[in-house]
Amino acid sequence: MISVELINTGSELLLGRTLNTHGQWLARRLSDSGYTITRQVSVPDTGESIESAVRESLARADLVVTTGGLGPTSDDLTRDKVAGMLGRKLVEDPGTLRRIEQFFEDRKRLMPASTRVQAWVPTGAEILLNDFGTAPGLAFELCPNPFCAGKSRSILAMLPGPPRELRPMFDKSLLPWLRARMPLDTEWACRNLRTVGIGESFVEELIAGPLQGLIERGLEIGYCAHVGQVDVRLSSQGRGSEHIVGEAVLIVRELLGARIFGEGDDSLESAVLQALREAGLKLAISESCTGGLVANRITNSGGASDVFIAGVVSYSNESKASLLRVPIELIEAHGAVSQEVAASMAEGVRSCLNADYGLGLTGIAGPGGGTSEKPVGTVFIAVSSGTGTRAIKRFNPYDRVTFKEVTSTQALDLLRREILGVGRDDKTP
Amino acid sequence: MISVELINTGSELLLGRTLNTHGQWLARRLSDSGYTITRQVSVPDTGESIESAVRESLARADLVVTTGGLGPTSDDLTRDKVAGMLGRKLVEDPGTLRRIEQFFEDRKRLMPASTRVQAWVPTGAEILLNDFGTAPGLAFELCPNPFCAGKSRSILAMLPGPPRELRPMFDKSLLPWLRARMPLDTEWACRNLRTVGIGESFVEELIAGPLQGLIERGLEIGYCAHVGQVDVRLSSQGRGSEHIVGEAVLIVRELLGARIFGEGDDSLESAVLQALREAGLKLAISESCTGGLVANRITNSGGASDVFIAGVVSYSNESKASLLRVPIELIEAHGAVSQEVAASMAEGVRSCLNADYGLGLTGIAGPGGGTSEKPVGTVFIAVSSGTGTRAIKRFNPYDRVTFKEVTSTQALDLLRREILGVGRDDKTP
Repeated sequence: MISVELINTGSELLLGRTLNTHGQWLARRLSDSGYTITRQVSVPDTGESIESAVRESLARADLVVTTGGLGPTSDDLTRDKVAGMLGRKLVEDPGTLRRIEQFFEDRKRLMPASTRVQAWVPTGAEILLNDFGTAPGLAFELCPNPFCAGKSRSILAMLPGPPRELRPMFDKSLLPWLRARMPLDTEWACRNLRTVGIGESFVEELIAGPLQGLIERGLEIGYCAHVGQVDVRLSSQGRGSEHIVGEAVLIVRELLGARIFGEGDDSLESAVLQALREAGLKLAISESCTGGLVANRITNSGGASDVFIAGVVSYSNESKASLLRVPIELIEAHGAVSQEVAASMAEGVRSCLNADYGLGLTGIAGPGGGTSEKPVGTVFIAVSSGTGTRAIKRFNPYDRVTFKEVTSTQALDLLRREILGVGRDDKTP
Repeated sequence: MISVELINTGSELLLGRTLNTHGQWLARRLSDSGYTITRQVSVPDTGESIESAVRESLARADLVVTTGGLGPTSDDLTRDKVAGMLGRKLVEDPGTLRRIEQFFEDRKRLMPASTRVQAWVPTGAEILLNDFGTAPGLAFELCPNPFCAGKSRSILAMLPGPPRELRPMFDKSLLPWLRARMPLDTEWACRNLRTVGIGESFVEELIAGPLQGLIERGLEIGYCAHVGQVDVRLSSQGRGSEHIVGEAVLIVRELLGARIFGEGDDSLESAVLQALREAGLKLAISESCTGGLVANRITNSGGASDVFIAGVVSYSNESKASLLRVPIELIEAHGAVSQEVAASMAEGVRSCLNADYGLGLTGIAGPGGGTSEKPVGTVFIAVSSGTGTRAIKRFNPYDRVTFKEVTSTQALDLLRREILGVGRDDKTP
């Protein structure tokens, strides 16, 4: 098994000013290619921190990837530090210099003198072309690896910091180079099934036993709980991996049934959109307590306008009446947060907008507004369609933002099940 | 200087399935409290990886914080591994067990048998109460630190994985406990000013010169660009820090004026809500291309219902006409994405819902739908009030989700400036 470590340099990461999206992006790209990261480290932009992190990673790993520190400013230290550690001279590379000059010419901008330093590359380095910036990436094949007595060879690759430079450079230059230099030494398979409406422990209770035989043959199971969703990752390495994981997927699909809404990167909202699109149906949404989150999630995918007509965020009672034709008497009789009003919202938005499906949500997000009968967290969700209206009650006593997230997931799942006709006939909670 | 290391456990991090928001959140909270992180590490959920990471961090740091691995499933190994490393027995804690049982009783849910393992805590551990979940956090004062000959004392704190459990636990339990056990060895001050509508380099151009004197006295400035927003972090350590940072805040506030919408963790949406609340005014929103994101952001704060009446997500032209009374002829004459339609949406939603302010947004989020005259990224934003309607055009040629984020920020800022009457009379872009 190839061991892979990722080093993200940048003091802003340690101060919490920047979210480490590089870490996630590279981790996903590498693991999807079979090079699973065994450790990720973030260190500040000081020479000492960078050097010790690179040294420690090379002492353990077959492949080490760094990000950042290749630019022209005084806090860009990675190239110099690594050249020093490896005992390589920095030499100006005419081709790289020409590319940097061209970059500025193309943009009709003056080339700052400091930029030229980026044309200096350590001897023996593979230069990874930068199509979207000036700093080239660098890669070294270390035969042997001077920091690990046991390794006859390791690879050290250095990528620039800006995402729009790093991402295409990884896909276009580093990955093909890596595949040629360090092909996977073993078969490897990984699939990720996404579930909704069932807790992490219940997922494990349902599937761990039946998968025992495959676990003994090398299957690994990972659970990842998101808000209202649980991912089940099935992976295996070595001979027969593809087959083992494939069998596991069949078993898990059989056991979890309609609780599985997708695979890989699929989102619940895209599953809803796809179900609507395949059925040729249109959706309208009426939400109160979720404040627009359901519509916002539905519209995060391109092409949402094919199936989504409109949403109404009816925060006030008057707006429920004026925009959705919910009778004021109904609100007065049952309260704005009630099964009856949720159903009327779903029916109202469906008929007002000539939709095939109408979704209605009303609840108490908190922190105020709860009563002993209807405490904070109480929510009613209704779906109206040509075949009638179905409403459910849920209790989500969380902070406001989590309440919105959980409730919107429950609503999207109810909608998905109604469209697909899979109901809620599962055996377990 | 106290050295701090953060260990995030979770194979999903190494597989790139989850963005490490914990890393950022904790890094920010810790550094703003004077405990700046010197290294952050992510490791998979294997006993060996967790143990070696904890061991290495304790060999270097005064404070080590771990996240994840405290739950009830088989891949939750942190508690067991750490107890083993420290030679502590696990003992069932009756108070913790009672809290876990209560958690399920309150939610009228069955307690899975596996959950009970979370009541087993290592001897000598400080139990950090979990108000939003079942796994308690754990903290150890190690006197001496058995993994570092030079340290007479280190602290090891373990937090649960889910953000809604981890965040309040850190603020309410761990930070006060830490401040008592490991007070900062020097005076420390840090303030974070939040700006909108101005680029990072322009912020620096405006303030770096005038702050030079304070920089020489120990002021440190950090810039952090978010989507459409830039934070300015002013910090200092040592004697007189509070005074130096206070002076810097006055200078930056004077120079950046209304571009500063808040401080610390203030959000732009909460600034808008506060401005509306103070003026006793009500808001209605009509958005198309942002798909509900503006309403969603506005309703993320408690008490939004005091000032927010309703929002309409009018994805189709028909819904613009039926819900907002935008004349179909206007859409036909100028196109749905036009200044005229944005203004009509703002006016329509304001009058339909008897609001004081109406916000209207229409644009092309992409990836499809662009033309040479109105390419993907084009957006019109209008605010209507008793004193008239004001519309602006913006160009945000990004991916769909970034487009929505940037556009909603521009809309909230336009609204904020209109309510506060600060206009757009600033001297620089």
